[in-house]
Amino acid sequence: MSAKIITIIVTKGSLDWAYPPLILASTATALGYECRMFFTFYGLQLLKRNLRLQASPLGNPALGSRVPVLIQTLPGMQAIFTRKMREKLHAKGVADIEELRQLCLDADVKMYACQMTAELHSFSKKDFIPGVEYAGAATFFQSAGESDICLFT
Amino acid sequence: MSAKIITIIVTKGSLDWAYPPLILASTATALGYECRMFFTFYGLQLLKRNLRLQASPLGNPALGSRVPVLIQTLPGMQAIFTRKMREKLHAKGVADIEELRQLCLDADVKMYACQMTAELHSFSKKDFIPGVEYAGAATFFQSAGESDICLFT
Amino acid sequence: MSAKIITIIVTKGSLDWAYPPLILASTATALGYECRMFFTFYGLQLLKRNLRLQASPLGNPALGSRVPVLIQTLPGMQAIFTRKMREKLHAKGVADIEELRQLCLDADVKMYACQMTAELHSFSKKDFIPGVEYAGAATFFQSAGESDICLFT
Repeated sequence: MSAKIITIIVTKGSLDWAYPPLILASTATALGYECRMFFTFYGLQLLKRNLRLQASPLGNPALGSRVPVLIQTLPGMQAIFTRKMREKLHAKGVADIEELRQLCLDADVKMYACQMTAELHSFSKKDFIPGVEYAGAATFFQSAGESDICLFT
Repeated sequence: MSAKIITIIVTKGSLDWAYPPLILASTATALGYECRMFFTFYGLQLLKRNLRLQASPLGNPALGSRVPVLIQTLPGMQAIFTRKMREKLHAKGVADIEELRQLCLDADVKMYACQMTAELHSFSKKDFIPGVEYAGAATFFQSAGESDICLFT
Repeated sequence: MSAKIITIIVTKGSLDWAYPPLILASTATALGYECRMFFTFYGLQLLKRNLRLQASPLGNPALGSRVPVLIQTLPGMQAIFTRKMREKLHAKGVADIEELRQLCLDADVKMYACQMTAELHSFSKKDFIPGVEYAGAATFFQSAGESDICLFT
């Protein structure tokens, strides 16, 4: 029997939203799925060699931050918020995004960068980690059409 | 013939973004679907006994708010914005999130809390409403793999 | 053999987030898919006759804007940010949202407006472009249940 296939579109590139697609991908492969990821728009940030992912509490009241919104807009606050999130993740034993990404690559997760949006953001292939391939929407549809699960994250 | 199955991942926990997954779930069961929801990251907020969901116009220009962004950052403005959204929903006869959630539970929607992110947010099982079960990504994939529809919301 | 079917839920209505569902839809039809789009919540903005889509860097650090958050909250900054994004899209030869939308309609993409959220936002059918039909969640599930790909964007 051939393996089940999952295709994941990754559109976001902040520290917090980087986790769901990469956790799904790494778990999928651990369970025997074949996994393909298509990084597009802000999601392309996750393919960069040097990740400097940040997170922001602005516009996300579900974070339950007790810091007033006005204070959150002050210079340096986004960096502080990001550092605190990173510290919390470390304290709870959650892997870095770099580690999770490598785990996925080691498990043969196929990572595609959307060529159109890469050009839009003036990324060149050498900005990305090795192993990333360019692809267009046609490649995505070929993968999605034969997938058992297809998610837009 | 067995019922069709829908699996919904719920990642957001603001007042406005709480609606799409819960409306999809309640309609699905009304149409005879079997429905499983996996709450993870900010979506865990929707499982709490005491919901205090808020909404924010920041970063969402599609709201068409006429209040200048700078004013929206002032203390108390998020609470005012949330109250106005809630009033509008009531005036239009839209159910509360609490009501929608109960409607889903009454219709045997299975609600899972992602164990890893629950621990990350220091939630314990007694923070959640009765009927919620802990689950990991493996349980999600078992459900997703046999689903007719699988959505990441 | 009958065509493959894709169903896309569109929940966002900012300039940047308008692109993914419309690019997916236009490519899908070019590849022979039958495509149905369900516009709901903020996504209804994309069906309006007069599009005035805006984008905001707030809460999205993946944009990598070098403008401090506090400055981004000042009056007029969202308009400036939107104009710059639009100019960049034009410079790179990316189609307008109006053009992409028309391309989709010309390719027989079926566009549905969610009746419940249209009423919630006090939209009437004449606010929308011709060809848009009202639909409820039941119509969505009928489409989703027979689709090869179903995405929540």
